[in-house]
Amino acid sequence: MELNKRQEQILQIVKDHGPITGEHIAEKLNLTRATLRPDLAILTMAGYLEARPRVGYFYTGKTGTQLLADKIKKMKVSDYQSIPVVINENVSVYDAIVTMFLEDVGTLFVVDDESLLVGVLSRKDLLRASIGKQELTSIPVNIIMTRMPNITFCEKDDLLIDVAQKLIEKQIDAMPVVKKVDKGYEVVGRITKTNMTKVLVALAKEDVL
Amino acid sequence: MELNKRQEQILQIVKDHGPITGEHIAEKLNLTRATLRPDLAILTMAGYLEARPRVGYFYTGKTGTQLLADKIKKMKVSDYQSIPVVINENVSVYDAIVTMFLEDVGTLFVVDDESLLVGVLSRKDLLRASIGKQELTSIPVNIIMTRMPNITFCEKDDLLIDVAQKLIEKQIDAMPVVKKVDKGYEVVGRITKTNMTKVLVALAKEDVL
Repeated sequence: MELNKRQEQILQIVKDHGPITGEHIAEKLNLTRATLRPDLAILTMAGYLEARPRVGYFYTGKTGTQLLADKIKKMKVSDYQSIPVVINENVSVYDAIVTMFLEDVGTLFVVDDESLLVGVLSRKDLLRASIGKQELTSIPVNIIMTRMPNITFCEKDDLLIDVAQKLIEKQIDAMPVVKKVDKGYEVVGRITKTNMTKVLVALAKEDVL
Repeated sequence: MELNKRQEQILQIVKDHGPITGEHIAEKLNLTRATLRPDLAILTMAGYLEARPRVGYFYTGKTGTQLLADKIKKMKVSDYQSIPVVINENVSVYDAIVTMFLEDVGTLFVVDDESLLVGVLSRKDLLRASIGKQELTSIPVNIIMTRMPNITFCEKDDLLIDVAQKLIEKQIDAMPVVKKVDKGYEVVGRITKTNMTKVLVALAKEDVL
């Protein structure tokens, strides 16, 4: 949404002098209050200004981009997560690699016999192991995995954007979506940079909201 | 931006009867033209309606989400790409894996002696090779890489969103940004799902535009 010249002037006045009443804004522009009404309505509706009874208009600091940002900030992990691929901690590294190819994922989550999250295996972890000297069929994944408490995870009600930020900061491709249970965490989902890329495409295609 | 009830009614009337004049909209709502003026101004400013002199208002089909979508659709690859990591086609698979760890990237681009793009190596390609029977130090990467013409690439002026879509469709994590030269393509950049995730975060933080 683009503002016209008068709306820009009003914004500037409110930035400089707010809170300020409609009448005072009109005075500064040598216009009547009635003339300004549509512009003030637009600026308020669009979120640039807020109006408080007996106080006047003040600048919210919000821009068009901010309203988009607000939309992205409301997205939840649960609306965009994928199905997790989980293996037992006693599986061999070789079998983990095979599972990764069969399931066509970049990250596996490792659980113990009680189905509680104990580790994460990325392609990078498996690649590192595979150039080592050991026999891949005889090492269990719990030797090479990233383990608790070093696992970055999230929950289904977390904000998608916080998770996106963590993926970047921690330089990881995926994280498990977990559910807290008595003795630890169960894996209920997987959220990846692929999910984030899909969100971007969905926003461009207006498949969101 | 959220519409109020009256603005929703106006939108519906224009959708059903447009092009329609302001007076006729007012009649249908049993209101005066003056009362409607702010609402019509808002709907027009926000891009929902367009007004043509002597014709009236008509529905543009655009929604708030669409305006955001328009913004994303203008982003270019060149504004978001990363630096490419390139290796020669005669390098061994072992050395490629080491390079991938040293440079901390998920995809390597392979060039010939004239620096022209001849292949792409993903972690997945390297992982597949590493569980094979061959000695990794003795196989050159050009045996296992994805080669032309099967490489998905883009150019710096391509739209970011088209590239995002291709990454998803082709199920790849990255693609080279290339420049056409006489005998083929030179690699000038790298664009990845990490870049896309960063764009999403930038949009939420309003670091864009």
